[in-house]
Amino acid sequence: MSAQDFGILALEVYFPRYYISQSDLEVADGCPGKYVKGLEQESLGFCTIEEDISSICLTAVSNLVRRLNLDLLNVGFMEVGTETLIDKSKSTKTVLMQLFEACGNFDVEGIDVKNACFGGTAALFHALNWLESSAWDGLRSHHVQHKYDFYKPDMSSEYPTVDGHLSLQCYRDALIQCYRKYKRRVWTKNQLPVVVSAPLKKPGLSSLHNIDYLCFHSPFTRLVRKAYGWLVMDDMLALHPGSLFPDKEAATNGSVIDDSIAENDTNNLAATIDDQVRTAFTTIVNGVGADPAKQPTRDVDIRCMEATRSLFSVKVEHSLVFAKHVGNMYTASLYGCLASLLFSVPELELRNRRILMYSYGSGLAAAMFSLTVHASRPLVNVVGSPASPDRKQNPVFNRLFNQRTRLQVSEFEKILNERRSSHNAAPFKPPHNPGGLFPGSYFLTEVDESHRRTYEILPSQ
Amino acid sequence: MSAQDFGILALEVYFPRYYISQSDLEVADGCPGKYVKGLEQESLGFCTIEEDISSICLTAVSNLVRRLNLDLLNVGFMEVGTETLIDKSKSTKTVLMQLFEACGNFDVEGIDVKNACFGGTAALFHALNWLESSAWDGLRSHHVQHKYDFYKPDMSSEYPTVDGHLSLQCYRDALIQCYRKYKRRVWTKNQLPVVVSAPLKKPGLSSLHNIDYLCFHSPFTRLVRKAYGWLVMDDMLALHPGSLFPDKEAATNGSVIDDSIAENDTNNLAATIDDQVRTAFTTIVNGVGADPAKQPTRDVDIRCMEATRSLFSVKVEHSLVFAKHVGNMYTASLYGCLASLLFSVPELELRNRRILMYSYGSGLAAAMFSLTVHASRPLVNVVGSPASPDRKQNPVFNRLFNQRTRLQVSEFEKILNERRSSHNAAPFKPPHNPGGLFPGSYFLTEVDESHRRTYEILPSQ
Repeated sequence: MSAQDFGILALEVYFPRYYISQSDLEVADGCPGKYVKGLEQESLGFCTIEEDISSICLTAVSNLVRRLNLDLLNVGFMEVGTETLIDKSKSTKTVLMQLFEACGNFDVEGIDVKNACFGGTAALFHALNWLESSAWDGLRSHHVQHKYDFYKPDMSSEYPTVDGHLSLQCYRDALIQCYRKYKRRVWTKNQLPVVVSAPLKKPGLSSLHNIDYLCFHSPFTRLVRKAYGWLVMDDMLALHPGSLFPDKEAATNGSVIDDSIAENDTNNLAATIDDQVRTAFTTIVNGVGADPAKQPTRDVDIRCMEATRSLFSVKVEHSLVFAKHVGNMYTASLYGCLASLLFSVPELELRNRRILMYSYGSGLAAAMFSLTVHASRPLVNVVGSPASPDRKQNPVFNRLFNQRTRLQVSEFEKILNERRSSHNAAPFKPPHNPGGLFPGSYFLTEVDESHRRTYEILPSQ
Repeated sequence: MSAQDFGILALEVYFPRYYISQSDLEVADGCPGKYVKGLEQESLGFCTIEEDISSICLTAVSNLVRRLNLDLLNVGFMEVGTETLIDKSKSTKTVLMQLFEACGNFDVEGIDVKNACFGGTAALFHALNWLESSAWDGLRSHHVQHKYDFYKPDMSSEYPTVDGHLSLQCYRDALIQCYRKYKRRVWTKNQLPVVVSAPLKKPGLSSLHNIDYLCFHSPFTRLVRKAYGWLVMDDMLALHPGSLFPDKEAATNGSVIDDSIAENDTNNLAATIDDQVRTAFTTIVNGVGADPAKQPTRDVDIRCMEATRSLFSVKVEHSLVFAKHVGNMYTASLYGCLASLLFSVPELELRNRRILMYSYGSGLAAAMFSLTVHASRPLVNVVGSPASPDRKQNPVFNRLFNQRTRLQVSEFEKILNERRSSHNAAPFKPPHNPGGLFPGSYFLTEVDESHRRTYEILPSQ
């Protein structure tokens, strides 16, 4: 695709049905000439109580789809630019994914973008850049769907509304969907099967798209342990002849799997999987059956975690240092895992390694993609310290383990209450306590009566 | 740049200084084993009242810049992924632009992206796509800067906080900055001068990067009339020898202007400008002087609008039908202008035309770029109706002019009050009134006790 070959092919306009005349408003406001002549405005449309950002976007997109007879299976990117937020966390984009349910295409990149009236332009630029990039036929897989699992609809609160059970189920479903789509993409592009369950070997040319390390979005680290078990289970299910891609009927974006090749590969594939894991999982799979739609029971989860304990400690656990010791880092979680992995494993051991990344955001938007560690470029800038056989020397780990301040639960609750009572307050000056911040940190000094915030910076060390 | 040649070159990790032990929390919550064994979490970091999303990002970015000794003049893209919103409109990205003030690089693409914990991944993908696209050395110019001109810091309100005077000044400053950067880019890339003040002629090969039509972000249409005058004034200032790029000393991203070529071109350039406009502006410029830093007075603005009245009606006014009759469409404003232009000018007249687009979002992020209407592809899908000599036949215009409902100001105020009193309410069922919506519209039917929203759709006609 050449850089000249794309652009805006269609526009859909939505405006409210109700309006008032600006000259009527001049009369009501007692300012003749101010709006019609002074602002050169004729009339003013306004929304009813039944219209919100989601209803407006649903109408605009569904009208566009109908008018152009668009095949939603062919959509790879969709993004919403808005400054009319009804949720601080869940994107309007996920609400629009309801329109994609019927065709089953959830592999649609993009979420919401925000900066006042600039959001539309940012979304347009993102879409154009995406078209020019290799992403649209590359090795990223997405799963984006409308769910109310964790969201922040109460604008007056810092806290989310959470359906914990649903959220775990969404996390798992999106993980499996992303992994299968990722496998399908790799197969279509390189005719290589993907496995996460091979022991860590020297990297090199291979008949396999081997995953050396894995980083997961980590709300709590036991979920990641389970998640790794689910992926290994998916590798095992792929060994059952004919089931390498169990939901291939639902293959989207025109991917086609060559069954004969895939099935002939299963023996080779089986040989790549860690021996102990294969034995243990064969027992489990025989118990579970190969029904990929089935939610694993608590018992199956525990047996999977047991069976993958040693692989997990080599391929996943290095990524969890921040997750375990800081807690849920939310948007930063996955990248905290990447940093943790790079800080924990010696540089030479990392060279050429493939790292599988699973990103999950409730509401929901999820993606899977992989990174390869560069063959020669020193990691010193990435990790913030020279390579060292003892990564405990890493200055960030040193800060984490030796320079934080442990408080009592009662002090923690006091600070939470302070936050709660000052939330949305203006004017407001937080009491300054340098002991609560690392040297070199910016901190909030004031929220003025117009909610404008000012910051200062602590001296470095 | 090949698709293999980019990736993550550095990571910066921020975590709070304070933490509690998860086992302490188990004691306090009376649930032994729940967190350490059940969630596999060791400790929990938490923020003080002096930390917010802006302070955290300021610290992380400034630490990264210092550690890598980054030259901020070389940064072309920066984006923030977060679900911790302290403003519904202003992006955290604009707050970070304070760090760029010293070097004067405001030409940095990207704003904030949002969907729960997925924001970081979306920002990463946007950055990678940008790197692979032609945007990073293409013809878009940005001006992004930290300003509190219009923002939505009060999370409990649907309404913005506005400094109207500052916002108009920001709009104008960003417009001029974007236009000059755009001109510089075109000059660097194609050695062609840009003008917005030539009469509309047949498109064709030219020694000029001629702008046929212009679309502006339009809070009210008189501002667009002024804005066009400011750009024409900038064309005129460029005719003063040596001042084609008045602030070229501040040229960013390594653009270099060849003065000799630029100055030799001024005579040719002058000849391209509309005669009447040139005469009128010469008088005005002689009065103003060529000081581009000077804010135009109200009197100068009025004389500029007078002098450009006829050019404006040909090159700009067609874009303002929605802006004038719907009011400020905020994020959709610029694209409403594009639709209006395409709906208003006959298809044959539009072919090959270059449209200059100016997008502005308070806080602030602004960009200028151009579109060219395709030489042959029918516009029927773009505009929603077959080409017609009488564009008043356009179904969207028909809806705008003949199918809306005009209400009295008192009814308008009643609906505003309804919105205000139901804002953030849950559970809530809005009274249904199909008369307030166009056929085929989605509408909100319910917000349940957990703030989950459901929608239905009105039958089409």
